[in-house]
Amino acid sequence: MRIALDAMGGDFAPGPIVAGAVEAVRELADIVVTLVGDRERIEAELSKHGDIPHDRLPIVHASQVVGMEEKPVEALRKKRDNSISVCWKLIAGGDVKAVVSAGNTGAMVASALFNAKMFLPGVRRPGIAAIFPSHKGPIVLIDVGANMNPKAEDLYQYGVMGAVYAEQILGVSDATIGLMNVGSEEEKGTELTRATHLLYQRSPLCDRFVGNVEGRDIHDGHARVIVCEGFVGNVVLKAGEGAVEFLFAELKKELGPIIAQLPPETAQTLVKGLGGLKARYEYQEFGGGPLLGIRGACIICHGSSGARAIKNAVRVAATMAEDRVGERIIRWLGETSSDRSGTEAG
Amino acid sequence: MRIALDAMGGDFAPGPIVAGAVEAVRELADIVVTLVGDRERIEAELSKHGDIPHDRLPIVHASQVVGMEEKPVEALRKKRDNSISVCWKLIAGGDVKAVVSAGNTGAMVASALFNAKMFLPGVRRPGIAAIFPSHKGPIVLIDVGANMNPKAEDLYQYGVMGAVYAEQILGVSDATIGLMNVGSEEEKGTELTRATHLLYQRSPLCDRFVGNVEGRDIHDGHARVIVCEGFVGNVVLKAGEGAVEFLFAELKKELGPIIAQLPPETAQTLVKGLGGLKARYEYQEFGGGPLLGIRGACIICHGSSGARAIKNAVRVAATMAEDRVGERIIRWLGETSSDRSGTEAG
Repeated sequence: MRIALDAMGGDFAPGPIVAGAVEAVRELADIVVTLVGDRERIEAELSKHGDIPHDRLPIVHASQVVGMEEKPVEALRKKRDNSISVCWKLIAGGDVKAVVSAGNTGAMVASALFNAKMFLPGVRRPGIAAIFPSHKGPIVLIDVGANMNPKAEDLYQYGVMGAVYAEQILGVSDATIGLMNVGSEEEKGTELTRATHLLYQRSPLCDRFVGNVEGRDIHDGHARVIVCEGFVGNVVLKAGEGAVEFLFAELKKELGPIIAQLPPETAQTLVKGLGGLKARYEYQEFGGGPLLGIRGACIICHGSSGARAIKNAVRVAATMAEDRVGERIIRWLGETSSDRSGTEAG
Repeated sequence: MRIALDAMGGDFAPGPIVAGAVEAVRELADIVVTLVGDRERIEAELSKHGDIPHDRLPIVHASQVVGMEEKPVEALRKKRDNSISVCWKLIAGGDVKAVVSAGNTGAMVASALFNAKMFLPGVRRPGIAAIFPSHKGPIVLIDVGANMNPKAEDLYQYGVMGAVYAEQILGVSDATIGLMNVGSEEEKGTELTRATHLLYQRSPLCDRFVGNVEGRDIHDGHARVIVCEGFVGNVVLKAGEGAVEFLFAELKKELGPIIAQLPPETAQTLVKGLGGLKARYEYQEFGGGPLLGIRGACIICHGSSGARAIKNAVRVAATMAEDRVGERIIRWLGETSSDRSGTEAG
């Protein structure tokens, strides 16, 4: 399994990105990670890791980088030889089966959208999924930023894609699908949510559809896939990250003085417990969010990803490509087409 | 100061609602809480509280109740004598200066919107504000559910209303205003966010406007007022509640066994510390969210509000009415009209 990794993407690239690639090839058999970016800088990073299997860490040179704060479309046009575009060329050309990047999210998505032949057949618009913890295990929120102006049909397809991802990658059986809304009654919300609600109810997915879910229901796990427009999903995802960070900062302030007075061994146990809990909330566990609806596999990592997040993203991308998540999405979309059901219902 | 309290609104009404009213008149001088709802049931609850100042807890009978899950507009039309509508009649008639309810939020808002003379002059659409904790103190998110299809001009006015509330009620000086978005660049997001960004930049409020903020910036307090459409605000508010609840449940699971092995006194100190932290995140502290842009004052409480939340809501409602938050909003809206500035800029 060959995977392209954007070595230049991320707040601290290429250091932790290359380190993650090294960890990945050491831990995962049968994986080749093609490092895309400035050859000299990548080689300098590789040299820090001692004895490594160079044949499983080939480099493809890209002379330019899209900055984290750059305007995506403009940057992609100006910098033709940027590492993100080169990654997509590798997957489009069949050289690799998956792409991983912690770089500019907008540029990653725009680069995929530019190339309509990267879309899976039948897919209207790819969507980014994010994973949240819940009382019943991980749940999928989709879309969290690829599509700012979705139609009901897009949110319908996101339900299919999210369910395939939940079942194939997260091990959920018979994933239920919910619609993010401001109340449980079906006429709640906006024109988009009402149209989407109707579409699901009249579709072959109606048995999986659990109706509207509210923000507070994310963590109860009743819906294992929650669909929403990219704007809402992006704000909720980042607000969640901010809330957890804030809460742990406050926890440190509040419990710090108490813990300081405990016997060292007890204090250590407590701090370790808290650390373990925090780790469960961090994106590093999941590596990043998959861009669903494209050929092969693509994981978009957080800008501040460390080596562990990158390694996990490479692992998930490989699993997605091996399990042929894309093929399953095509099949499901065909079997559950909302248009067809619309005709049947009408 | 006379305040109407919807005694029938809330998941556990009228018990905790009446208890909150009793606490309020006991703690706050010069306050009269008019209890609106089923006279017999309210009297039965009042009789549980021993010696109370009955003259400061008058009852206005309302024979009907809008259920928490009822469709607001339909319910208001069918049940003319419901407690929410009676509360609004009391404020419209000048009998009270403020309204507090933990009942059906949609019905509270719809009831206010039905009566256009309840709007403050110059206000396009009222908005509900919610308070979040941040590293710099409380911040205001507006709107969290009154307006599902706002225009840029609405989000502009929400900035003014939120800033007045932050300064008059939360004690913030020179409240900054931010626009909820998916990235920091001004062209990010939707048509609505781009139009709103431009409106602020060209307005007399441009010095207070800190531009786009992302979900993760809520708790840093850089923007003390964050404006967004009601759908987004509602989802973020409820997702935040759900996340805190989930995190504390996990914390209990993770730390419970460790704490159980500590000496009783140490364990107690720790549990107390955690409890204090959780309380800071609960709506009970703030009583509820104000509906801004209407005459007098209105606080919409959480459905599961206990006596303390109700008492706090009554206190905040009284302060808002006394401080003439409404008059200040009218003056600010006049002084900072985005139309006028649009003409000047053009």
